Amino acid sequence: ARPRVGYYYNGRSGNTLVARAISKLRVKDIKSLPVVARETASVYDAVVTMFTEDVGTLSVVDGDGYLSGVVSRKDLLKIAISGGDVHKMPVGMVMTRMPNIITVTPDDTVYLAAKRLITHQIDALPVVRTFVQPNGQERLEVVGRLTKTNITRFFVELGNDEL
Amino acid sequence: ARPRVGYYYNGRSGNTLVARAISKLRVKDIKSLPVVARETASVYDAVVTMFTEDVGTLSVVDGDGYLSGVVSRKDLLKIAISGGDVHKMPVGMVMTRMPNIITVTPDDTVYLAAKRLITHQIDALPVVRTFVQPNGQERLEVVGRLTKTNITRFFVELGNDEL
Repeated sequence: ARPRVGYYYNGRSGNTLVARAISKLRVKDIKSLPVVARETASVYDAVVTMFTEDVGTLSVVDGDGYLSGVVSRKDLLKIAISGGDVHKMPVGMVMTRMPNIITVTPDDTVYLAAKRLITHQIDALPVVRTFVQPNGQERLEVVGRLTKTNITRFFVELGNDEL
Repeated sequence: ARPRVGYYYNGRSGNTLVARAISKLRVKDIKSLPVVARETASVYDAVVTMFTEDVGTLSVVDGDGYLSGVVSRKDLLKIAISGGDVHKMPVGMVMTRMPNIITVTPDDTVYLAAKRLITHQIDALPVVRTFVQPNGQERLEVVGRLTKTNITRFFVELGNDEL
């Protein structure tokens, strides 16, 4: 007969699934669609994109469509409140510029992404794929974004499913 | 002898701790300090407070110090970009006002808080205690804030400790 002391592991326990979900989940499993602005777009247009798409951070791309910067609601608020001409100023002037940008790849773990969000005190990470140009230069294509909202939603799903 | 088939529960397994942490953790265990503005403060001053304290949402209090509203970076960006006079406009004019405010108490679970953040599409919740006035009216005292950052940090701690 089976021992009745304690709890007997059967391979499908909720607890195990929780731990597995945290350690195994990849960025590609929970990432959101990318929302981008051109470097040459005005600060005003970037704010409009942010409101239209309901996001707090935009990836900024250069003329070839590769990642050149990141701009947050905080960056834009700082400019808007300081009375600059938001219709004339390009977003390229106020963004955080490459290579000072923290990113993740689709195959990174969500745990690594969460650690980067906390360590670097940011709200969102561009999810990128690296392309090596014929001249050997690396360029980043934006394929998504990973935010504290994704982490919080995942946290809620863990609770829904397993408890 | 102990059965060697599978995994035998001993009451201190990492998986169990993860599940327990998610289900048992209370808002008071991970909340941040409250950051408040007076209703009569200007939009400009509210933005300055936000940058000084490095938060994305402020609880707004009335003359008696009780919660009367909440204002987010998004609310302030909308006003700042629209060209209003941010030095003259009081934050009380642009905030979300009671009773349309989603809150939690210190004894609510973090899971409930996370669910409210996702359901209501907000970044932060005021943590409140209820006071009943002599006339029977309920007022809310702000004792903290619970944000997606708190949830993400907790998620990272789960990963650090248990995996």
